Amino acid sequence: MDLPLNPRIAIVGAGAIGGFYGAKLARAGCDVHFLLRSDLAAVRQQGWIIQSIDGDFSLPPEKVQAYDDPLQMPQADLVIIALKTTANHVYQNLVGPLLGEHTAILTLQNGLGNEERLAELFGAHRVLGGLAFVCCNRVSPGVIRHMGFGQIRIGEFAAARSRRTEAICEMFRKANVPCEALDDLRTGRWEKLVWNVPFNGLGGLLDMDTAELLASQPGKEMVIELMQEVIRAAAAWQAKISQELIHRYLAVTATMGHYQTSMQIDRRLRRPMEVQAIIAAPLTAARSRNVATPRLAALYDLLCIVDAANVRETTPSAIS
Amino acid sequence: MDLPLNPRIAIVGAGAIGGFYGAKLARAGCDVHFLLRSDLAAVRQQGWIIQSIDGDFSLPPEKVQAYDDPLQMPQADLVIIALKTTANHVYQNLVGPLLGEHTAILTLQNGLGNEERLAELFGAHRVLGGLAFVCCNRVSPGVIRHMGFGQIRIGEFAAARSRRTEAICEMFRKANVPCEALDDLRTGRWEKLVWNVPFNGLGGLLDMDTAELLASQPGKEMVIELMQEVIRAAAAWQAKISQELIHRYLAVTATMGHYQTSMQIDRRLRRPMEVQAIIAAPLTAARSRNVATPRLAALYDLLCIVDAANVRETTPSAIS
Repeated sequence: MDLPLNPRIAIVGAGAIGGFYGAKLARAGCDVHFLLRSDLAAVRQQGWIIQSIDGDFSLPPEKVQAYDDPLQMPQADLVIIALKTTANHVYQNLVGPLLGEHTAILTLQNGLGNEERLAELFGAHRVLGGLAFVCCNRVSPGVIRHMGFGQIRIGEFAAARSRRTEAICEMFRKANVPCEALDDLRTGRWEKLVWNVPFNGLGGLLDMDTAELLASQPGKEMVIELMQEVIRAAAAWQAKISQELIHRYLAVTATMGHYQTSMQIDRRLRRPMEVQAIIAAPLTAARSRNVATPRLAALYDLLCIVDAANVRETTPSAIS
Repeated sequence: MDLPLNPRIAIVGAGAIGGFYGAKLARAGCDVHFLLRSDLAAVRQQGWIIQSIDGDFSLPPEKVQAYDDPLQMPQADLVIIALKTTANHVYQNLVGPLLGEHTAILTLQNGLGNEERLAELFGAHRVLGGLAFVCCNRVSPGVIRHMGFGQIRIGEFAAARSRRTEAICEMFRKANVPCEALDDLRTGRWEKLVWNVPFNGLGGLLDMDTAELLASQPGKEMVIELMQEVIRAAAAWQAKISQELIHRYLAVTATMGHYQTSMQIDRRLRRPMEVQAIIAAPLTAARSRNVATPRLAALYDLLCIVDAANVRETTPSAIS
């Protein structure tokens, strides 16, 4: 399935990631429709405000097509999913109404298992996965701060590289988003986990940012050991990752300064954390292939305690 | 060595524990001399203020003998140590000047290794250990809030039960502190660790109080598994503890409400935590007898990350 030349795009879940990339696409002239929940009123009133190291910009409200009900939205050619994975149980309700016969679905979510779930619900042929390497946080409703990086890597879930992949990459590049097509999405997913597991996991557990974690010897050692466990688990799933990635990631992370991962922010705000997609899913994958990952296991068990306390105190965060 | 009838008592390190028990002893007419650091000015000005579930009381400043220099203090018949164990490297400087030929030393500190260190420095014959089962926090300089319990268990470090032990117990009882003599201090220490390891350890790691930890299934399971590991380690050191203690401790803890352990408070205030005495020492003991304690090991490794961040940001907390 190819994409039409000027595809209609639906962004489902417009927090930091969805807002940032959606606003960039809209600014570049794409036909973008945002499905929002808590930020809807703010976005309708003031549009999107992006504070970016690449230059601030805003999209005025009259240029933002924003909704809180997928049934009010037109069918899309491309649905980009940027929900928190803790809301994945509402895929059907949110994504279903947006699909026409040829609609493609690209998930930019973190962790493992998202493409699989989308494929089950809507058909594997529709599904692509994307890995967003970006430091950005939502600082208030409709306001996103972009502190670093921004590139995306995109691959087909159930096929090799496709013309569709190339078309989406090209679309992002025109919107000033560096974008690369992946031949092997699975390896790409595991590579991203090599970063997300330690920094989201320890950040959420200990309420420490990337610089704090790397500032002490015990912190740095724990980060590296978790990375090594993820690489071992990946290998058991035919995702071959070089140990060299560890050094590369440590060097890149050092340039981020005091970056708070989404999981640390969720912990601080006592919101549900993405424990399932980022921590539990790779742990389950490792166990199913008998790969010992004791650090990851301990991290998971302890995060469950924190998450249980957060979830107890909050209302469900899913868009629904 | 017997104690004289009305022994001169030195309290070394008068935070919550030292202040609480010292004030009770002084109120009962004992000759108590307090060695303080940060709270000295407040205690000299306003005396001790104890907000206690057993009834508030205060000791006026003219009834409090308070010092910040052990060289200014008279020799004591009994030195009671209530320092944070993170200050144990200053034992020599703080305790040495207080010792006469027959002075006994009672440590009320948490964790393992305190009596051993005191015995090395000052002779095993002087040393007794005490376990304080009490919920109290220092709420401001010279002000201590006592929220529950209060009993002490005391035993000789290098001997069986002694007349000295009985005399100290009797002294505490006269000050309205329930006190029991132990025949086997080592088992008593390990029993206390069965509580301290999970609640101080997880409290300090996750910044969660006792009620929060027990409110979720993952939290409760982790507490119980840590308790089981401590019991297994204790058994390898001939300290036989019944599994039944777990149920007893869980029931008692449920009555404490939202109690913040000292380690949680230290973490919040970014002060050094008692990781060495409460977590590392039992872990080392377990490892030296080949007892597997994976939960305890993970707890230790993660606490080191938090403690490294705290210590980096603070000045040394030792009295010196």
